[in-house]
Parts: sequence; C-alpha cells; structure tokens
Amino acid sequence: MKQVSEAQSGADPLHMIDLIRKKRDGGALDAREIRFLTEGAAHEAIPAEQLAAWLMAAWIRGLELDEIRALTLAMRDSGEKFPSARLGRKAVDKHSSGGVGDKTSFLVAPLAAACGVAVPMISGRALGHTGGTLDKLEAIPGYRTALSLEEFEAVLMKCGASIIGQTDELAPADRVLYALRDRTGTVESPGLICASILSKKLAAGLDALVLDVKTGSGGFLRSVEECEFLAALLVTAAEAAGTRTVALLTDMDQPLGYAAGNWIELVEAVELLRGQRRPDNEDLRELSLILAGWMIHLGGQAETPEAGVPSGRSSSPGWKNGYQRAEKALMDGAALRIFFEMIAAQGGDVRVFDDPVAFHKPGATRIVDAWESGFVATMDTTALGWAVQRLGAGREKAGERVDPHAGILFHARRGARVEAGEPLATLYATTSAQLAEPETILKRAIRFSENPPNTVPMVRRIFTNSDAERYLESSSHH
Amino acid sequence: MKQVSEAQSGADPLHMIDLIRKKRDGGALDAREIRFLTEGAAHEAIPAEQLAAWLMAAWIRGLELDEIRALTLAMRDSGEKFPSARLGRKAVDKHSSGGVGDKTSFLVAPLAAACGVAVPMISGRALGHTGGTLDKLEAIPGYRTALSLEEFEAVLMKCGASIIGQTDELAPADRVLYALRDRTGTVESPGLICASILSKKLAAGLDALVLDVKTGSGGFLRSVEECEFLAALLVTAAEAAGTRTVALLTDMDQPLGYAAGNWIELVEAVELLRGQRRPDNEDLRELSLILAGWMIHLGGQAETPEAGVPSGRSSSPGWKNGYQRAEKALMDGAALRIFFEMIAAQGGDVRVFDDPVAFHKPGATRIVDAWESGFVATMDTTALGWAVQRLGAGREKAGERVDPHAGILFHARRGARVEAGEPLATLYATTSAQLAEPETILKRAIRFSENPPNTVPMVRRIFTNSDAERYLESSSHH
Repeated sequence: MKQVSEAQSGADPLHMIDLIRKKRDGGALDAREIRFLTEGAAHEAIPAEQLAAWLMAAWIRGLELDEIRALTLAMRDSGEKFPSARLGRKAVDKHSSGGVGDKTSFLVAPLAAACGVAVPMISGRALGHTGGTLDKLEAIPGYRTALSLEEFEAVLMKCGASIIGQTDELAPADRVLYALRDRTGTVESPGLICASILSKKLAAGLDALVLDVKTGSGGFLRSVEECEFLAALLVTAAEAAGTRTVALLTDMDQPLGYAAGNWIELVEAVELLRGQRRPDNEDLRELSLILAGWMIHLGGQAETPEAGVPSGRSSSPGWKNGYQRAEKALMDGAALRIFFEMIAAQGGDVRVFDDPVAFHKPGATRIVDAWESGFVATMDTTALGWAVQRLGAGREKAGERVDPHAGILFHARRGARVEAGEPLATLYATTSAQLAEPETILKRAIRFSENPPNTVPMVRRIFTNSDAERYLESSSHH
Repeated sequence: MKQVSEAQSGADPLHMIDLIRKKRDGGALDAREIRFLTEGAAHEAIPAEQLAAWLMAAWIRGLELDEIRALTLAMRDSGEKFPSARLGRKAVDKHSSGGVGDKTSFLVAPLAAACGVAVPMISGRALGHTGGTLDKLEAIPGYRTALSLEEFEAVLMKCGASIIGQTDELAPADRVLYALRDRTGTVESPGLICASILSKKLAAGLDALVLDVKTGSGGFLRSVEECEFLAALLVTAAEAAGTRTVALLTDMDQPLGYAAGNWIELVEAVELLRGQRRPDNEDLRELSLILAGWMIHLGGQAETPEAGVPSGRSSSPGWKNGYQRAEKALMDGAALRIFFEMIAAQGGDVRVFDDPVAFHKPGATRIVDAWESGFVATMDTTALGWAVQRLGAGREKAGERVDPHAGILFHARRGARVEAGEPLATLYATTSAQLAEPETILKRAIRFSENPPNTVPMVRRIFTNSDAERYLESSSHH
C-alpha cells in the first residue's frame, strides 16, 4: 500500500540506508534526500543510529555548499515557523558564535527595537566555556524563557523585542540532530554548525540576521581561517534562504566588558543602558552599537531622517546611520525602557535592578591580586571561560544547574598597567571550596609583559553576501 | 564513588565519546579501548548512536591490523565460550564467505567428524544473494538450530559434529554490532567483517579453522585483491587468537553443484554422502574433500597411518592425507551415518531422505529452456543468487521467512554445450506469480558462446599464517 502511494507521487521511495551509503562514499545528497532526512529526524521516523552514522559520514566527508543550504532550509522548515509578518515591522536578530562576558544581546535587542525593528530572539544556554543568554536572564526572579509562540508574539507586539529559548515547535530536526551530534563527536563540522545555527534562527521568520563570529583566544573556532569560512558559509546559506545577512568577525582575545557570569553581566548591560560609561567596557558598548547599527540598517530603519543628522551624511554606509540611531536610543533611555518592559512582560521582577549590588549574593568571594607588575599582555579567554564555568556560573553538560551569582569581575583589561598586589579580578563562587581551581586557571590564563601589547581592532572583517560568495569561490580553488 | 573505584584500578576511566573522536580523526584504539567498546556493546551500556558513529568512522578511516586483532579477541570474549576442551578431540570448524549453492557444510562436518575431529559449527542464515546453512537444515521437519550450549555439547559428544545458529551467549558484542552495521551502511569493511566472522567462530573454542573465501561472480567481494586481503586478515587474526587457521580462495564463478535452494541442496549433499557421483557436481565433491582434508590435517588427524597408504607417501602435505581419509569416509558411508545421527540428535526426521523427491513439494515449477545453442560461457552467480532469493528460498531482510522448497536446479554448468530448446534450469517457487522475475534474472545472468570458455581452478590460492603475514606486509608497503 505504502509503495503504491509513493509510486503515485512520481518519485522512487527513499531509504535512509541509501543516503548513508551515498555520504559514506563521498557523494552529495540532493534537496529531496536532505528533506527526507530532516523530516525523519524531526518525527523520529529514522532511528538514532542511522542519523548518527550519517552525521559521522558528513563530518568526515564534509558537506557541499548546496547540501549545506538544502540542510539549512529543510531544518528550518522541519517544524512550525514563527509568523513574524504579523508583527508589522521587519524582524531582525543577532547571533553570536559564543564568547566570554558577551552580554551584547541585552543591549542590541532593546536598541534595535527602540529604532523600529522587531527582535524575535531565540537564544541558548551556557555550555562549556561559553555563557548563555537564557541562564543570565533567569538570574532575574520570575523571568520566563520558555514562552509559547503566542506569548512570544504578544511580548513582541508590546515591546518590540523578546528573548526566549528554542521551543519544541521551532526546527525540531535541529533539536534531534544537535543532541545526537553532542553524543557522537560530530559537533565541529562547519556545514552542520551552519545549518544548526541558522535553522532555529530562521524558523523565527527573520527578515535579516547579524552574525557575530568570535575570533581569538575565546572563540569557538581558534583559527582565523576557520572563522572566516564559517562566517562566509553562514551568510550565503542564510541569504539563499531569503534572509538578508551580514557576519562580523570580532575580537574575543579578552572577555567582553568587565563581567563574566550571569547576574553580574546583566548589571553591566543595564549600567550601559542607563547611559553610564566606564573605560573598562568601552569595547562592549562599541560592539553593541555596531551590531545594533547593522540590525537597524538591515531592518530598513537606518535611512529614516534623524533630527540633528545633516542630510549630506546620507552617503555614509547605512549601518553607520543605524549606529547613530542606536547610540541615541542608548543615551536617551529608550532602550532601557524597552528592556525593562520586556523583562516585566516575561514575568521578571525589574526591581532587582534598583539595587543590583544588594541583590548580588554569591556564596563565596575571593579577590585575586596581580602577582607581578607590568602590562596585561595576553588573556587565554577560553581558559577564563572555563574558570567562570567552574565557579558555578556555567555547565559542563547539558541539563546541569547554574548559579546566577557566580562569575568573575575583571579589574584590568588587555593593555592595562598593573602593579603587583593590586586587585586583578574578583571571583564569585557558590561555595568557597569552588574558588581554588578557577583561581589557578585564572593565574595560568593571564600573562604580563614589560611593554604594552599590540591593540586588536574590535571588528576584524565584515562579510556581506557578495563578500562571502567571493570568499567561498576563492577558497574552493585551493 | 564510581570515580574512586576507577581511580583505584590505576587507569583513567574511558568515555565512548573520546573513542569516537579518536577513530574519527584517524587514530587507532588500543586493546583496552577496544574491550571497553565491545563490553559496552554486549551489555548495551553504550547507546546505539554512539556505536553507529564509531562504526562509520571505522568504515571510512579503516582499522589497523592491531585494532582488528584486538577487536576479534574482545568480541570473542564478550560472552560465554563453548568449553570445547571437554570434547576430548580437537575442535575444528569451516567458514565460508557465502556463496550460491554452497552446501559443503553438510559434507565437511560429518567427513571431518568421521576422521576423529570434533566439528562445533556455528552457522548463519540466508541474507541477500547468499543462502544460509540454518535455513537449509530447517527444511528437515523437526530439526532444531537453536540449541543451548549444553545440548550442543551433548550432540557433539554423541556424533562428533553439530550445526547450530549463533546463540545469545556466544559473542553478544557481534550480535549487537552486526545488527547496527546492517542498518548503518557499515557492513563492507574488511576489519569489521574479519572481527565479526572470527568472534562467533572462535567463541566456539576452536583449535583450528578452515576458511573458504569465495572469489568470482558469486563472491561477497568482487575483486581478487579484496578477497586476498580479507583472507590474509582472517588468517593472521585467528592465528593471533591462538587458532590454527588456513584460508582457501575458491571459485564462485558458477553455483556450487547443481542445486541452489534449501531442501534441494540437502538432497544433493546426501546423494554425495551416499557415494553417488555425477559429472555436474564434481566441483562440490572436490571442494568438500579439500576443505575436509584441511580440517582433518589441522585437527591433527591426517598423519594417522591408514591401511592401504604406503608409508612413503607421508612426505605429501598433511592436508592431502586428510583428503584421502575424508574420501574414504565418504565412500564407506561413515560420514552419512554421522550426518543422519546428528540430524536425529537435533530433532530432525531423517525419514524424509528415504524418498527426497516425494518430500519436495514446491508451490510452482517452471523449466527454463536454453534460448540459444552454444557453450555456457559466463554465469553471473550473484544475480543467480538473487533469483534463488526472489523465488522464496532466501530473504532480503533479516527476520523474513524462507520457503524450504523453493530454489533452482541447474541442468548445465559453465563449459557445457547446450542446444536451444534443451532444459537449462528448473525453477521452484512458492507461487507461480513468483516465477517471472527470477526467470528474467536467470536469462540475463547466463551467456553463451561459440567456443568453450576457459576453465577456472577450484582453489585459486591458499593462505597459511606465514603466507598471510607476508601478504599483509607487502600490501602495507603500497
């Protein structure tokens, strides 16, 4: 009976075993085969061992560009899609490849929303050396990250931005495949990473997407070439799916801003939203405004004439207009109001920000002093991320609890001159027994020098679609 | 607690994810890691998706000789072992890589047993284009292939030979891994094939093993090089496990003997055991005597002085003495008596052999006549195996039922001169609707020529342990 109905559809029925053999032997699956695979994953019609064998074959043999694009689309379409068109504004999101102290989401979401863009942001949790936006937000009493799509829409209609976790409805194929990759040693494949990142983002119905690919000692991928390749892949695959996309390669050779943890990162973000500036997180402010500028530009809101902007400046790139609009929304408190509205709309108690220091109740605190005098030369940011995790702020394995109050405050940044005995960092842990190992990690991760180190630009490279296409074309000739 | 006890064992605890990554990156697992994997497979402590990912990595990256040997040993030891030492004779088995019409097991088991060797034979079922010894034996009413190890021992003590299926107790890691390989496209890997074949055979406690690796159009591996490599692997891995082993590369450019099916193959074997000779299965008789000769030789029973054999002939290779002893046991009816005793001991009703033709009740019969005159030049034996399967005698997927009466009788062999219109083959199917497709396959599989084709020797090459070691050494230099 089944064969009859499949024969009527005009195509031979597909069998997972054939798709596995094809990839095993270095072949490429076509769009129909990719869709068969993702549908089977989403509906659990293909057993885990067959998906795992295919994933390993894909990891070793690699995926071709067309396969990656087909996989991205098929995974995006494997479940429901958020009806962003009903929002009445362009839907734009930002995605970061994961860093240490990266709290830009709390800034860019309200900044872009304040400038007329809708930000339906689907975020993740802390894993390994990187923090998680959802874990940070859950430091706010009452904040709910697990909204239904209806609730998500209601918050977006009210505030213009909402930050939630991946739902069961959006891109279920990614949920199944990601869990398998984690267990089968097939995480670090550019094609699989690309399809995984984009599928859940694009299922939110994005008109545009800004990608922040971290480079340097704290990045997920260590070499600049790997970062560039992934950035170019992401941009062309998202554009092929109909979403305007740009990727920025940004510096993660030190933690972003002065705080890394959960609650303390929110505090740092709210300080900036309150218009407070300090020299040790200008990098965070600058990157947030650049990312928000691109979101506003791609969301079509950068060209709106602004009071005080001479019309002659319209020749400057659109994202710079977006930057200026974002900076205004930062300084005039518009973004702060939206952020607090969003928190309240998702059940969070914003009164905790009235006295952030009083709310911060870590189980144990230790100040680590500089052990020599000199300039802070290098910071192994991945190691520092692990120190934050070991303090209790992150998790080693999916499902573990995190401590909202654990983390590290850095009192000196790369290039700062410190004297031996001055406070270098403050560690917050759940218990005092948890302080020793992170302190050891921290002391190995930071090096001093007699002379100031070279400075590193915050944005190393920008990939628009045409840049990305050129890059992939030239790299395929190697 | 677990960590403490593992630390006390003096070695770091192993994690499957690390073993997957190692193989994924082209590394080789050591014996401890291999044993961790096979124990985890046998006791279902490692999830199927992790085993599947490792199998795919092993398929693509390959396994080193040491890994294959370690895997063979670890899989052999993953469950119980048959206590063959209690039999009081050398335990010797024969394994074939699978062919069409290969009923040598029914000859060599009683022949070797008649010459003083114990034959604890663990056999398999039909799959794809190859037949299965167990399915053939189950054509005999009452014959039980699923004996307990105690029952197996009792039959061996009584008859000297017993043919049963793989039990749950023997090499359970192979059962788990083989089922996974079948579903994940990782069957055709020389290392995995080698460990799988040997583990279940060696778990029967063999002192020696004779391997029959089929070459030509009906073989599991098509190229001679692949067959040679597998044969050499098998011999060295089995010898490394302490079992004296030889491999014969034999001809499968046509079905072995005149019958391919289930009951009709048993009938052909019993005819030979009854001393009947006919020109169209001299190949089967010859190969069975050669294989039995090697079994008798490796089992230490070839040097026994025989009446009528002048002592001056003791300089001829031991297996030839074994051949002569086997031929005597064939002609004097000793092997037939053992075969019937074994069938009866396993519950089978030997009276069906009183009138084999009357017992044969196929659902449908068709005689296919030669469609042209000439010499039978080539037979695509794999295709002929599929024709036998489609008639109902075999199975496409594990678990399917087989028809004991289906099959093909071949009335002409390679090199035979036939006239158009003469009967070429008789097809037996379950229903007449099942005759058409196999007839089409058969007509495509057999080609005629004006001149007689070249003859092919039955044994193309023999690998003893030293031959096999030399072969692997020289092939690794390529």
